[in-house]
Amino acid sequence: MMRLGKKRSTIREIFEYGNRRAKIVGRENIFDFSLGNPSVAPPNCVTEEINAFVAQEKAEVLHGYTSATGLEWVRQAMADSLNSRFGTAFNKDNFYMTVGAAASICIVLKAIACPGDEFIVPAPYFPEYKCWIENTVGGKCVLIPAEPKDFQINFAELEKSLSANTKAVIINSPNNPSGAVYSEETIKKLAVLLEKTAAKFGHPIYLISDEPYREIVFDGFKRPFVTKYYKNTFICYSFSKSLSLPGERIGYVVVPDEMEDCKDVYAAVCGAGRILGYVNAPSLFQRVAGKCADKTADISIYNKNRDVLYEGLINAGYSCVKPNGAFYMFPRTLEADDYAFCEKAKEYDLLLVPGTDFGCPGHCRIAYCVQTETIERALPLFKKLAADYGIR
Amino acid sequence: MMRLGKKRSTIREIFEYGNRRAKIVGRENIFDFSLGNPSVAPPNCVTEEINAFVAQEKAEVLHGYTSATGLEWVRQAMADSLNSRFGTAFNKDNFYMTVGAAASICIVLKAIACPGDEFIVPAPYFPEYKCWIENTVGGKCVLIPAEPKDFQINFAELEKSLSANTKAVIINSPNNPSGAVYSEETIKKLAVLLEKTAAKFGHPIYLISDEPYREIVFDGFKRPFVTKYYKNTFICYSFSKSLSLPGERIGYVVVPDEMEDCKDVYAAVCGAGRILGYVNAPSLFQRVAGKCADKTADISIYNKNRDVLYEGLINAGYSCVKPNGAFYMFPRTLEADDYAFCEKAKEYDLLLVPGTDFGCPGHCRIAYCVQTETIERALPLFKKLAADYGIR
Repeated sequence: MMRLGKKRSTIREIFEYGNRRAKIVGRENIFDFSLGNPSVAPPNCVTEEINAFVAQEKAEVLHGYTSATGLEWVRQAMADSLNSRFGTAFNKDNFYMTVGAAASICIVLKAIACPGDEFIVPAPYFPEYKCWIENTVGGKCVLIPAEPKDFQINFAELEKSLSANTKAVIINSPNNPSGAVYSEETIKKLAVLLEKTAAKFGHPIYLISDEPYREIVFDGFKRPFVTKYYKNTFICYSFSKSLSLPGERIGYVVVPDEMEDCKDVYAAVCGAGRILGYVNAPSLFQRVAGKCADKTADISIYNKNRDVLYEGLINAGYSCVKPNGAFYMFPRTLEADDYAFCEKAKEYDLLLVPGTDFGCPGHCRIAYCVQTETIERALPLFKKLAADYGIR
Repeated sequence: MMRLGKKRSTIREIFEYGNRRAKIVGRENIFDFSLGNPSVAPPNCVTEEINAFVAQEKAEVLHGYTSATGLEWVRQAMADSLNSRFGTAFNKDNFYMTVGAAASICIVLKAIACPGDEFIVPAPYFPEYKCWIENTVGGKCVLIPAEPKDFQINFAELEKSLSANTKAVIINSPNNPSGAVYSEETIKKLAVLLEKTAAKFGHPIYLISDEPYREIVFDGFKRPFVTKYYKNTFICYSFSKSLSLPGERIGYVVVPDEMEDCKDVYAAVCGAGRILGYVNAPSLFQRVAGKCADKTADISIYNKNRDVLYEGLINAGYSCVKPNGAFYMFPRTLEADDYAFCEKAKEYDLLLVPGTDFGCPGHCRIAYCVQTETIERALPLFKKLAADYGIR
């Protein structure tokens, strides 16, 4: 635990470096693309609903315990919102409200993990997955290399890594750090492979769909809703990104009716929540999320940022898969050593995160959840950086 | 996990029974003393501070990520509040903000537990301790019998239970379910015993002080502040009871400077928070707690309730240790089988929790965090119940 507490993530190190550097050259001259902290304001409904609940509800009720699984009307609102937007048929009993996405994933892992279990994570991946698999449940994290041509799944590698010990595969689409959104073809192929493998080994293989960026999809891209393709899917969701509320820790787990032994699995989720020390999700923000479940922050800003940044990088000679969602871009670095490249970028006060941290060397992550103007001012610096590598 | 999720607590069963029964005889005729859910409103500062922060702070900042340990000014406010009230010398770096008391305790257990560790819990105790010790960290829970004459610690039993495997002792004062507050004599005796034992076995023995009822103390009783008596003490706190905010999940862990290897232990607390899936404590309520740390709900209501209930029970022929704090009373049941007694009490729609659930048979818990008028109307029923046992 001490080691986990002392070892700071690379992302956090870069962020701290930026703060120190800002004191020397001024905050406006630091181009901090390191953190995925939304800069876009929450939608107005968030503030309106906080004010309405505080004004209208008795304080001891508003801030009182809810049931461990969450308020019934809130869970039904979650179901209604997904059903109307994605054509699903959920009801309140499929939902367990959580203290955000990290909690959602830890709860699911704890609910299903047995000794010896393996959990497969396709790169590029959110680094905490490995930490949770290994430390929260003592499982084995099996990382599979990326498919860098489009950042869909590398199926050849996935197939090789499936074994009798495979308990689950974790996917994250729209993806952090690549911004890729898995296509319907990818999800269908994944479902077929997992069903075949589950049948071969005689036990379910779960799909854990971590989808905090679900609503941040560009150009009308149709993101397939995973439970409709594969029955043994957990949805782990958080309102952190869609409502720009990352500090408030509000999200949910969905256990669909189609899942094998779904009532038992749901009970295991409740048991896991209990022993991880989650008593109930925060009561005011359960209600706010219940009222705002269909709303999002102004995602068009991320879309614009993506367009400006992508065009700028391509014009400057970078190579990059165009992201369809989230607020990350994941270009190739201009030298094979992505750590060295990110160090060099610091000379221009461009703060980027090496792809190696996401299991994908030779790339770097640019979190563009910043002001568009920041991107515009950064582009000439990206150009100078490219020039240092002989690209003009 | 499934078993933990399906097995409902006795308290929750009684609460559900009350809801069913209320539909038949009317809510006002059910005397539900089963749940420790504060009925007293939060102090006005809670609503005022929510309104002030929402009006004055940019929403994307207010609801944005904080550092994992909590906002610096909030942690300093926590330190200042304890220092001014209890004469301690804490600073912000001793504090780790959490998602409530359950999270505080799970984090501390996870931070210190090694395979084979034993954790000692004096009865009567909050039942989830056993669940967390056994399931969250796989430790051995060593329960020691109560000292029913005053509900201080049964030192003869504690001394017998200490071993080379003892990692920590968990105390809860003011106590749920007895309402007892440990005296300075008790805490001093405990400190001497633990220091002697730690020296004997050559490793620290931690004291985990779970103190969500810290501010709910009556008649000017001086509750000793535990870190001043024993250096290897963790404080696990929650604002659930003092500010009547149980649903909002806001609390903290204190790792005092005096603790052996305090920096390493604090890092282990951070590591444990990380792998339990707590990213940061909820951001709005961190701020509210920071501003309201010196305030409490109107505790005089609990004091009045205690007086009315205690006098009524004694007059009706019950035997009970007079509680000095919290909002629970823990009388002897009028037959040895406390389950049978609580069943009989149901005939009068008095909903009580058997003491066996708290490791203390022959007693029952009455949660008096209800309207005073409810207690007044219940007292004739307690009298009839006593009459059934031949007491007039």
